[in-house]
Amino acid sequence: MNKLLIVGSLAFDAIETPAGKTDKIIGGASPYIALAASYFGTKPQVISVIGEDFPKEFIEQLNNKGVQTDGVQRIKGGKTMFWSGVYNKDMNQRTTLVTELNVFGDFKPEVPPQFQNPDVLMLGNITPTIQRQLIENLDTRPKLIVMDTMNYWMDSMPEELDKTIRMVDVLTINDEEARQLSGEYALVKAAKKILALGLRFLIIKKGDNGALLFDKEGQTFFAPALPLENVADPTGAGDSFAGGFCGYIAQKGKYDFETAKAAIIAGSVMGSYCCEKFGTEKLLTLTESEVNQRVAQFEKLTKFTF
Amino acid sequence: MNKLLIVGSLAFDAIETPAGKTDKIIGGASPYIALAASYFGTKPQVISVIGEDFPKEFIEQLNNKGVQTDGVQRIKGGKTMFWSGVYNKDMNQRTTLVTELNVFGDFKPEVPPQFQNPDVLMLGNITPTIQRQLIENLDTRPKLIVMDTMNYWMDSMPEELDKTIRMVDVLTINDEEARQLSGEYALVKAAKKILALGLRFLIIKKGDNGALLFDKEGQTFFAPALPLENVADPTGAGDSFAGGFCGYIAQKGKYDFETAKAAIIAGSVMGSYCCEKFGTEKLLTLTESEVNQRVAQFEKLTKFTF
Repeated sequence: MNKLLIVGSLAFDAIETPAGKTDKIIGGASPYIALAASYFGTKPQVISVIGEDFPKEFIEQLNNKGVQTDGVQRIKGGKTMFWSGVYNKDMNQRTTLVTELNVFGDFKPEVPPQFQNPDVLMLGNITPTIQRQLIENLDTRPKLIVMDTMNYWMDSMPEELDKTIRMVDVLTINDEEARQLSGEYALVKAAKKILALGLRFLIIKKGDNGALLFDKEGQTFFAPALPLENVADPTGAGDSFAGGFCGYIAQKGKYDFETAKAAIIAGSVMGSYCCEKFGTEKLLTLTESEVNQRVAQFEKLTKFTF
Repeated sequence: MNKLLIVGSLAFDAIETPAGKTDKIIGGASPYIALAASYFGTKPQVISVIGEDFPKEFIEQLNNKGVQTDGVQRIKGGKTMFWSGVYNKDMNQRTTLVTELNVFGDFKPEVPPQFQNPDVLMLGNITPTIQRQLIENLDTRPKLIVMDTMNYWMDSMPEELDKTIRMVDVLTINDEEARQLSGEYALVKAAKKILALGLRFLIIKKGDNGALLFDKEGQTFFAPALPLENVADPTGAGDSFAGGFCGYIAQKGKYDFETAKAAIIAGSVMGSYCCEKFGTEKLLTLTESEVNQRVAQFEKLTKFTF
């Protein structure tokens, strides 16, 4: 079995969407990434940090899904990171109400020996400095390093971010971030500029308008988003997308464009399921047959004979 | 050869986009629809109205592309419709500066005898009343009636619009218009409500985010937009899309979901080419091999093996 290592936050989220409102539920990037990846035959390994207040039951739920949590540091007397936000009517924009970093503020990622030598490394959206430290703490370079980031780091530490991007193989950002990072409006031009930083693939996420995959040879692939009748909560959809991508590609152990295309579909499947319930609920209860069913839906959605 | 009848405006446009600015060039819905349709083996027939100031050379250019213009009324002493607009930086929004209806204000569409009994009728975006008159002026009901409309008619004459929609088979609108018309945010729900007006197909256009096709049996197809490196002018892209759709489906003479899927791709091909130059320039100079090339690009763009 190929090894997938994930670093990313574990947090409490309080979420309000047009479909409802939650108290503190489990959130952060890493549970979405790990759970989504777990459906494709890997046993994802997670590096993160939590406070004493984090429920052991959730860690057990992750373990039951095959997620290895030996890299999750539990800080005595510490408080778990907390985020709270409200989505607009369209659910394509959200306003952050509260961000309390808590134990995440002093996070120093350590790699347990049994987590060394991963085939694929997924760097969830955190400080580019921590992302880089993690790469440097590995004994061998993974075959594929995937990195998520956001506009916040483009604004606050562009040089740190640039340094880190130059160390990875795949970057996942949204369309606005691609425009900001490249200074180009047309995504084809933006992709060329960003790929020139040394990436193998660039993934541009467009929310409910799908995702684009670019490589440095100029190949392009587009995965639509599945039109959904009911969206409960888009929180974690991007992380679930990244998780499906990493889980699929790690399990295949092939890092070419053709495999990346199918991995993007795996990501889209997990992103679409994620939105149907609040938080990680849907990802905790999916079945293999549901995953296969949705892959088939994606195949059908764009298939035509001219 | 199956017959495609088109009704729609012929106009002068003055356009400003981030890529440049034009004086009065030829615009309006019908030249885009007819030129786009002409690439799929039909000889589109156009019903429209122009003033004495409209250049005969452009009519000849249409004729050279196989477009039949016997239904274009030239009004002595009249002035051709004029529209002027400016696009924003993203080219996904535009501000209308001037609309002078001129001869279009008194337009009474007449159907020349040789234009009777069309297989497919395409109603370009004009007053729903005129669209309905045109249907009523036909000796036989076409096998497929396709209708374009816009939010302006939803605001100004919702009852007239509703009456006309109930007479057609295919409606093409954009995502915001689908939401406005249905009162539903999720496009899947919006589509169900709109299809219940008696449509066979609903096409929801999402600009540079592609287009969705829905039928009343709950089938869905998604056509991406081709990521373009250079967009000169999006004017007429929606009409070119409709033209490609109508031209393809008229030529096939089959009006089922599978044919409609391919027709949506034909439309997407023409819409994408349209944007590459100002006005109708690109559609006047395309070659068959360019059309086939782009169909192949669309096939490749979403193809994957899981």
